[in-house]
Amino acid sequence: MECKETNIEGRNAVIEALRAGRPIDRIYIQDGCQDGPINTIKREAKKSDAVIRYVDKERLDHMSETGKHQGVIAIAAAYEYATVEDILENARKKNEDPFILILDGIEDPHNLGAIIRTANLAGAHGVIIPKDRAVGLTPTVARTSAGAVNFTPVAKVTNIVRTIEDLKKEGLWFACAAMDGTSMYDLDLSGPLGLVIGNEGFGVRASVFDHCDLIASIPMKGDIDSLNASVAAGVLCYEVVRRRLGK
Amino acid sequence: MECKETNIEGRNAVIEALRAGRPIDRIYIQDGCQDGPINTIKREAKKSDAVIRYVDKERLDHMSETGKHQGVIAIAAAYEYATVEDILENARKKNEDPFILILDGIEDPHNLGAIIRTANLAGAHGVIIPKDRAVGLTPTVARTSAGAVNFTPVAKVTNIVRTIEDLKKEGLWFACAAMDGTSMYDLDLSGPLGLVIGNEGFGVRASVFDHCDLIASIPMKGDIDSLNASVAAGVLCYEVVRRRLGK
Repeated sequence: MECKETNIEGRNAVIEALRAGRPIDRIYIQDGCQDGPINTIKREAKKSDAVIRYVDKERLDHMSETGKHQGVIAIAAAYEYATVEDILENARKKNEDPFILILDGIEDPHNLGAIIRTANLAGAHGVIIPKDRAVGLTPTVARTSAGAVNFTPVAKVTNIVRTIEDLKKEGLWFACAAMDGTSMYDLDLSGPLGLVIGNEGFGVRASVFDHCDLIASIPMKGDIDSLNASVAAGVLCYEVVRRRLGK
Repeated sequence: MECKETNIEGRNAVIEALRAGRPIDRIYIQDGCQDGPINTIKREAKKSDAVIRYVDKERLDHMSETGKHQGVIAIAAAYEYATVEDILENARKKNEDPFILILDGIEDPHNLGAIIRTANLAGAHGVIIPKDRAVGLTPTVARTSAGAVNFTPVAKVTNIVRTIEDLKKEGLWFACAAMDGTSMYDLDLSGPLGLVIGNEGFGVRASVFDHCDLIASIPMKGDIDSLNASVAAGVLCYEVVRRRLGK
């Protein structure tokens, strides 16, 4: 995963970028600027995750690539997605059985960030997310991942089911996290594995569920229904880690 | 844990409650009300977690306990803390070795909510939090816990170290989550156990650390430093679950 930063310079350019929902990480505003467009930028920045920093004109002049910053420069984060092949290559390079997380519709950026963070520390070789109905690599995700997006490849695919079928040809087995399956302690989770985690509210979609080989359940003793999605992913990932460590 | 809801009625009462930082869950505002105090309420509500709902006058009249709602009623959540004794009693009632989470300074309400949720499902008998430098039971925590605050007792104590020493007299052992300790897979985590989880940024304080019997580390294979606090708590809790299930 690489993150290239791009300058967006000038009032209108920054306003348009914010309104278009581009992932803006930080906005540098010249000290003392307080006119209408600058106030619009501040208001729009509040709605997104952008952090505003006030700097002097010299600093902006120095940062500027166009020489026409008009008192404002936004830093847009452009995270680069990996491919599924990159993820497999990551496993090959380490001479390990592939261990991939497939996230079927995680919507909360804090959950996606926490899961990428967990994937990194649990030694997973990559994370696969769908193009639609799911959060992508936003600045919040990058921040919540505590830097893991820079190390763990994240691939975005159009069709999760097709990706699962393709990966089966590479020898992977698929375990789907769901209630009413087999206790994760009683499953064989060794070997090349894809771990499928569903949406926060609805779980794994039926179409994806049907293509999994195993249904892995976390034993629940309590009074409520389910764990938070990123906690459930963590617990399941570490059950895989335990098997891989032979503990 | 019980949650009693209290009506706060009238414009000034609601504004004062919001400004005092009382945990307000929802605010009902009469359709069409748009004057200064109502706008102040909307602005203050935005800063806290309060959800605003617009309802007609009849609904407010029906909800009102004072008959003087002036077009606005706030619902304040008053969560009741348990005592450490309640937690021990919870274990006794179930005829189980106590399993208690001690959170030494969790600040993020989403983390606290997720941890209480995990505690419930992992069969922990309660959660202990400190009075200072930590988030308490706010509406966000209650919401993030997915209802677990209604089942899992949460006790708030002045001095974590003293609580640990008191619980040792009850036969509990204390395992502290930290890096550079013994792999959690190689520790004896059976029997009456307190699991100590530290602050998101700084971990467990030295004074608390020194009173723990074991240092439990989650094996880390990756490139970054640490798991999200609620994920780490989940992974450690489920290692305890695995031992208790004899798996």
